[in-house]
Amino acid sequence: MTSAAPLARRAVAEAAGTAVLVAVVVGSGIQATALTSDVGLQLLANCLATVFGLAVLIALLGPVSGAHFNPAVSLAAWWHGRRDGTGPDLREVGVYSLAQTAGAIAGAVLADAMFAKPLVSWSTHHRSAGHLWLAEAVATAGLVLLIFGLGRTGRERFAPLAVAGWIGAAYWFTSSTSFANPAVTVGRMFSDTFAGIAPASAPGFIVAQLVGAAVGLALVTVVFGRRDGHRAATAAAPGEQELASSRH
Amino acid sequence: MTSAAPLARRAVAEAAGTAVLVAVVVGSGIQATALTSDVGLQLLANCLATVFGLAVLIALLGPVSGAHFNPAVSLAAWWHGRRDGTGPDLREVGVYSLAQTAGAIAGAVLADAMFAKPLVSWSTHHRSAGHLWLAEAVATAGLVLLIFGLGRTGRERFAPLAVAGWIGAAYWFTSSTSFANPAVTVGRMFSDTFAGIAPASAPGFIVAQLVGAAVGLALVTVVFGRRDGHRAATAAAPGEQELASSRH
Amino acid sequence: MTSAAPLARRAVAEAAGTAVLVAVVVGSGIQATALTSDVGLQLLANCLATVFGLAVLIALLGPVSGAHFNPAVSLAAWWHGRRDGTGPDLREVGVYSLAQTAGAIAGAVLADAMFAKPLVSWSTHHRSAGHLWLAEAVATAGLVLLIFGLGRTGRERFAPLAVAGWIGAAYWFTSSTSFANPAVTVGRMFSDTFAGIAPASAPGFIVAQLVGAAVGLALVTVVFGRRDGHRAATAAAPGEQELASSRH
Amino acid sequence: MTSAAPLARRAVAEAAGTAVLVAVVVGSGIQATALTSDVGLQLLANCLATVFGLAVLIALLGPVSGAHFNPAVSLAAWWHGRRDGTGPDLREVGVYSLAQTAGAIAGAVLADAMFAKPLVSWSTHHRSAGHLWLAEAVATAGLVLLIFGLGRTGRERFAPLAVAGWIGAAYWFTSSTSFANPAVTVGRMFSDTFAGIAPASAPGFIVAQLVGAAVGLALVTVVFGRRDGHRAATAAAPGEQELASSRH
Repeated sequence: MTSAAPLARRAVAEAAGTAVLVAVVVGSGIQATALTSDVGLQLLANCLATVFGLAVLIALLGPVSGAHFNPAVSLAAWWHGRRDGTGPDLREVGVYSLAQTAGAIAGAVLADAMFAKPLVSWSTHHRSAGHLWLAEAVATAGLVLLIFGLGRTGRERFAPLAVAGWIGAAYWFTSSTSFANPAVTVGRMFSDTFAGIAPASAPGFIVAQLVGAAVGLALVTVVFGRRDGHRAATAAAPGEQELASSRH
Repeated sequence: MTSAAPLARRAVAEAAGTAVLVAVVVGSGIQATALTSDVGLQLLANCLATVFGLAVLIALLGPVSGAHFNPAVSLAAWWHGRRDGTGPDLREVGVYSLAQTAGAIAGAVLADAMFAKPLVSWSTHHRSAGHLWLAEAVATAGLVLLIFGLGRTGRERFAPLAVAGWIGAAYWFTSSTSFANPAVTVGRMFSDTFAGIAPASAPGFIVAQLVGAAVGLALVTVVFGRRDGHRAATAAAPGEQELASSRH
Repeated sequence: MTSAAPLARRAVAEAAGTAVLVAVVVGSGIQATALTSDVGLQLLANCLATVFGLAVLIALLGPVSGAHFNPAVSLAAWWHGRRDGTGPDLREVGVYSLAQTAGAIAGAVLADAMFAKPLVSWSTHHRSAGHLWLAEAVATAGLVLLIFGLGRTGRERFAPLAVAGWIGAAYWFTSSTSFANPAVTVGRMFSDTFAGIAPASAPGFIVAQLVGAAVGLALVTVVFGRRDGHRAATAAAPGEQELASSRH
Repeated sequence: MTSAAPLARRAVAEAAGTAVLVAVVVGSGIQATALTSDVGLQLLANCLATVFGLAVLIALLGPVSGAHFNPAVSLAAWWHGRRDGTGPDLREVGVYSLAQTAGAIAGAVLADAMFAKPLVSWSTHHRSAGHLWLAEAVATAGLVLLIFGLGRTGRERFAPLAVAGWIGAAYWFTSSTSFANPAVTVGRMFSDTFAGIAPASAPGFIVAQLVGAAVGLALVTVVFGRRDGHRAATAAAPGEQELASSRH
């Protein structure tokens, strides 16, 4: 990660972005449950608010810190770029993860404050079951495949809409509503509201997410082939042209 | 189909993309029916999850395999490009179709697994009637017209949003909720949930889809004119400028 | 309108596009009323299907015919470009309008057919009141201001999303749910369903739309200034840069 | 603000844009409450109409006036650009603010007229509490950070979708449903409907918004660093490349 912005400023961006992301997730859940008793509509509001907010945050903060907002993504970025120095080093991953986690907690507290709830109330929403862990692994694997797959074909510019779209779909098609993010999982422990997760359920989710991230990295190689070490070359590879040629 | 990625890798991309697409369609249907009893809201959730997921999958996998995820589209690509070698050959269409169908079935099973349902349960959702077949033909004709029409004016880059938008509209304006895809139709037989289709109803849908694809190819010629054999020429034709617009 | 595609092919594009547009509007209304009894949700489904469909149609057919799908827009295009020959002539406006109206009627019939309704049933949905006509005038004025305003600043490439977004907003913020289109108004007379309009109410709507189009053309001049005859010059004018400079 | 369009025309654009924005917010609230009794669905319709309308207005009028539609943004633009002359001067801020406020009031009256309501009826919707003011400050701070942050990385072209997305998220994740705009707050006093605000509650909202704008400006510096006086330099800084993305 040859980065222009100093690490401190990047960490601030990661913390701020993750804070707003969790505030959106938790806050919209509170608003939705206050306004309707239809749980489907509650999830729809929660989902759309997250899609809007996440796209905006990635578009805004991507140029500063890469807009990971997610320790699983930061870790995957290290692994994916470890050979050619295009990813962060492990120290940066550590700083990012701390900033993301601190931001996530702050975001949950901020959401509670905006809705005049107790600032911290441990969630009692238990989410522990094999099918939920499978869902988290699927959601995170897809997220990692998406982020690094876009990178492999030189289309990172799609990330704001694509990542938001993926999470929007995964809200519905995974049984866990797709946390897919260890820092956000921790943050969501701190609010006993719609989007919360009981602390006892968090470790299982986080393990599943990390397993999913590893699966996602493997899928990147299976679907996009081995990296030839030189990103620019990949971006200009004929594979890109093939999309065009196969569509007319 | 002069393609950079080896056929095996393209087949993996088609299988993976179709699997996730069906997992999104089936899984979001399960989630929606679990959370609300309003069928309109169920379809809205199902529709939006599909729009989000489909756009992401096309954006991600288009550069690898063309992101057909649909035997009717692969077959149409062969027909449309058969004279100037810009489409797949029939062997590639066969491989694609098998990969898409296998992926679709796997996606349905994955959705069932994520929601702790029996992995396979034949759908009992009967969908057999003339007006439904008309709807499938209309939806597939529009899909084919869209994909190859965008190609004829050199705007394949719009495909992720445009194809997703078309399916999103067709969820509502067709009585069949727009399957428009033989592989997805097969996959949806494997889950006795909201988005399922009874095996006995599948052949009728698939025939209607193939008829629709043929109609769509005819419409491409009617609306966009005969191909002059040379794609670059078409893309640069003055017709493009007449939009008064798109390229300034 | 110096156009590459022959007028006949452009007329086919206008007819097909308007047909699908009306099929989307009418069909999604039928589907929505069949699935939910919440009228707010019915309008939401109707609105989103229209937004998706309209954006796709403009993106697809813009390069062929300009994607007006609307006699009020075709007429405004003639007026706006009458001095420097950038718009259609009146004969083309006539052909377009006929094609649009025929397409609109066909689209309503197609929607009825897809839902196994009588192919033609005159709508009994009365929509006659001063505040509804005001709403139609506002919706159409905004539509015309949008289309030609984007053209005046060389940003016609935004038209698919912008026009769809405008109609999506106007579904809700106008009391008439924004027909904003004489051809679509005629088409919607032919289906006695959610989106229909009683024939007796149509003339009032159409007059209001034409008044709105005239107001919209006046607003183009008020907001974007007089044309300096030469479009390229306008597009490169410093006004474009000002957006940038006022935002950082 | 080195501007091409004369100030009068820019003021018209600001007035018209803010008028339509408030008409969308107020009108969609009236429509939604007329069609459904589910308050969650009412807010969803209100939110989506605003997202659509706001994106369109910024895309259309940005090149003319900068598309602020918001005195807090105009004031922030003056502060942010005060040293290098890239922002408006205080006289322009005054003219803009008057135009925006007049437009906002006109928009509320227009919405009432379109729905056959009394043209002016003071809202009785009381919104006065510390947590609501916190929400307004958060929403406005985020808005200012977004607008000027995009500017600092040369991505103002994202503003239409990004600003609309931010407001769309903030409708749900803030307890105040994110007015985030002093002119719109004044306009919403004039309609005793879903989106209204009692005049007595307006001053608290406006103060919170101005505090939020100041916080947002501070965050711009914290997250994006000090301006190095020269915009082109910033836009080309390596930080942009670090997104690993956006410009390939």
